[in-house]
Amino acid sequence: MKKIPQISLVGAGPGDPELITIKALKALEVADVVMYDALSNPVFLDFAPDGAEKIFVGKRSGKSSFQQIEINRMMVKLAFAHGHVVRLKGGDPFIFGRGYEEVTYARTFGIEPLIVPGISSATALAANQGVPLTSRGYSEGFWVITGTTRSGQLSTDIKLAARSKSTVVILMGVKKLPEITQLFKEKGKGNMPVMVIQSGSLPEEKTAIGTINNIVKKVEDQEIGTPGVIIVGQTVGLHSLYPQSLQSFVEKNNHIIHAISNRV
Amino acid sequence: MKKIPQISLVGAGPGDPELITIKALKALEVADVVMYDALSNPVFLDFAPDGAEKIFVGKRSGKSSFQQIEINRMMVKLAFAHGHVVRLKGGDPFIFGRGYEEVTYARTFGIEPLIVPGISSATALAANQGVPLTSRGYSEGFWVITGTTRSGQLSTDIKLAARSKSTVVILMGVKKLPEITQLFKEKGKGNMPVMVIQSGSLPEEKTAIGTINNIVKKVEDQEIGTPGVIIVGQTVGLHSLYPQSLQSFVEKNNHIIHAISNRV
Repeated sequence: MKKIPQISLVGAGPGDPELITIKALKALEVADVVMYDALSNPVFLDFAPDGAEKIFVGKRSGKSSFQQIEINRMMVKLAFAHGHVVRLKGGDPFIFGRGYEEVTYARTFGIEPLIVPGISSATALAANQGVPLTSRGYSEGFWVITGTTRSGQLSTDIKLAARSKSTVVILMGVKKLPEITQLFKEKGKGNMPVMVIQSGSLPEEKTAIGTINNIVKKVEDQEIGTPGVIIVGQTVGLHSLYPQSLQSFVEKNNHIIHAISNRV
Repeated sequence: MKKIPQISLVGAGPGDPELITIKALKALEVADVVMYDALSNPVFLDFAPDGAEKIFVGKRSGKSSFQQIEINRMMVKLAFAHGHVVRLKGGDPFIFGRGYEEVTYARTFGIEPLIVPGISSATALAANQGVPLTSRGYSEGFWVITGTTRSGQLSTDIKLAARSKSTVVILMGVKKLPEITQLFKEKGKGNMPVMVIQSGSLPEEKTAIGTINNIVKKVEDQEIGTPGVIIVGQTVGLHSLYPQSLQSFVEKNNHIIHAISNRV
């Protein structure tokens, strides 16, 4: 009996295998085929049935093994041939994952994919370092921008972001760090705290922390590479490596912690 | 034997109980006390041991039952008295959750909380509607901003966001929708697609979809209230209620789907 073609686009989270959702695991449990990216932890594949086909379609050392169009075609073809295809993607399928292109391709063949959101590395990696993306009195939001647009250029939004009061998270921008820091310097933000995280939430995680003025050298010294996330903003200054962070928070939030002497 | 005081700040995700992470459930399983918000689904409490104390500290019909300082104090007090306190928060604890204030308070008593990131409603609710926050050729990022700053004012970042090429997600802004849409109109973006989602990812989810020019009326007609999320940007135009969405995507991405006639 031929199975009904189905596709689920599933976010696997930022890397730490425990940061996957129940919904994602439930989708894997009923997969006939899993097409997975390099960013997903291989432990997830154990949730798929033994008989399910598992196909790696991610990047190896920065190079795509497959073109997007090949992935799209394979996904639809396998759904028609075997039934339920789980397309397992690092982070969230609709945040810089090209997920919508896969959805659209599937729709042209009459398949409406199920979307399972995941925790994006854009939002989780700062938290893993103890840095909030937002905090009262520090930032009024956060802005996630790609460092590399389709044309290979730096997004013009980064120039605008350098003027904002929001925490700025830049993905796919580590190689353009000198250009990016220049834009913040032009807005007089040389002393703004910055953090660069490589392989966030995984055991091999590496972090450089500094300011717009000195982060390029720190990233070089610590040999931070890709995939990396750049986080710029006042909340980065709350990282424990900034010795004044707790004190400055206490000063700004006296009204909150005035009961500090009220020890339990 | 007195237990060691421990605090975990745990993100419960956007509402759908299956969008919680494994890490969050593991924290709940070893809780001695759970302090939870209104936004968390009560089903999560079943993961805590039967003997664990479960305390509601969220808002009821928009009003805080507890002040932030009371929550902070209670959390530390209970950790010293009973051991492991899980502070279960809707969404992600470090995205508009006042989580960092709780962390700082705990640190002043020598407790270093564990942070368990969650899926923020800021990023997941669009995906649940089939709308990507980013998609090549449509947006170069997404910007999440609070509609209501500490002083009660609209964030000045929203004016900047109205100029950007990013998808703009505004939390806590539904009551200020006329002001917000005015800022986008001033940048000539009256026809920009907008979506307002109430109670996203829950069974009672309600959505209004339109443009900057007509969204205020649509939200009134459909009686969309709080808590709500406003999403503004070209990718909102990819929602299935926009009849041209698929066609426009096909036109923009011909290179990706040129194999459309290559039916399997």
